[in-house]
Amino acid sequence: MSVSLLEQLIEALRVLPGVGQKSAQRMAYHLLERERSGGKRLGQALAEAMEGIGHCGQCRDFTEGEICATCASGSRDRQLLCAVESPADRLAIEQATGYRGVYFVLQGRLSPLDGIGPHELGLDQLGQRLAQGEVSELIIATNPTVEGEATAHYLAQLARQHGVRPSRLAHGVPLGGELEYVDRGTLSHAFGSRLDM
Amino acid sequence: MSVSLLEQLIEALRVLPGVGQKSAQRMAYHLLERERSGGKRLGQALAEAMEGIGHCGQCRDFTEGEICATCASGSRDRQLLCAVESPADRLAIEQATGYRGVYFVLQGRLSPLDGIGPHELGLDQLGQRLAQGEVSELIIATNPTVEGEATAHYLAQLARQHGVRPSRLAHGVPLGGELEYVDRGTLSHAFGSRLDM
Ligand SMILES: [Zn+2]
Ligand SMILES: [Zn+2]
Repeated sequence: MSVSLLEQLIEALRVLPGVGQKSAQRMAYHLLERERSGGKRLGQALAEAMEGIGHCGQCRDFTEGEICATCASGSRDRQLLCAVESPADRLAIEQATGYRGVYFVLQGRLSPLDGIGPHELGLDQLGQRLAQGEVSELIIATNPTVEGEATAHYLAQLARQHGVRPSRLAHGVPLGGELEYVDRGTLSHAFGSRLDM
Repeated sequence: MSVSLLEQLIEALRVLPGVGQKSAQRMAYHLLERERSGGKRLGQALAEAMEGIGHCGQCRDFTEGEICATCASGSRDRQLLCAVESPADRLAIEQATGYRGVYFVLQGRLSPLDGIGPHELGLDQLGQRLAQGEVSELIIATNPTVEGEATAHYLAQLARQHGVRPSRLAHGVPLGGELEYVDRGTLSHAFGSRLDM
């Protein structure tokens, strides 16, 4: 017997993080019973996003254009550059703080065993940017994990090579935690109290 | 500024049950970073399922055809009819037990305050089916909640009116619980020990 549309949907939902067989069934039934139009909108949004979203040519954040809205904005301070591991971290800082500079999204962290080195994180591109002389401070907002710390030290070195002052977020972000899940108040405080490094 | 594809995707994901802003962000980033093709497949599966899945003309379960695979099967015992509240309950029984009869999916439970009466549950259609004389036992597998019990009593009465023996699942299903979440062993035992009512 062929696989039904319902079985296909349940299987496809399991691509979502944290969604197993039972959750996928519950989601499929919920949509079919009560949210058909919302389910259609989601299908459309997925198709467009998976096809249309690429990376910003300047900051590597997700965007559907050549350059993201933040990089294209005329009202951001280009002397301040904040390096984050992921788009989610960038969003957390943007939502929690009054930061008006720009970002650089590593899309990962140094992890030699996984084959993730400076090149994979776009650090050659970042070095060129720092060499241009516009950036005066590199705010390093990697996660306080072992790999995040190693990445932070590499970034600080890179900044100093180009005469750019490296800084990092103040203590306040819990050790071993993920920026994305820190409450806004703590994150905002840590961002404001960032230290030279 | 217009809403970006990413923002549209995050908003659309919130249609899923139990998914708030933070989870939706995490899902969107996960798909963009690691599961583009899975995300496309999900979009396609949603589009097809929301458009193509309707209700079986015989049992009211979800199906993309006129009649679902179970009702169309030549190897099911049509003397046994099992009434369940939802497709998820039907699936739980099908997966947990060796039941070889057919089903009737109420797609709800009696709830006069919400305007859900016998007609909304297809009980006129069920009455006609019972009147045809093929069904000898109506296995009532509503949930052990107040409304589920009220529905069970109504169904038992309907069965007796047509000379059909009503039965219900044995004790073993926890009171106040939902069939869908009962472990297979308990559900299988309760199904096998069903009692006349
Ligand atoms: Zn950008
Ligand atoms: Zn059917």
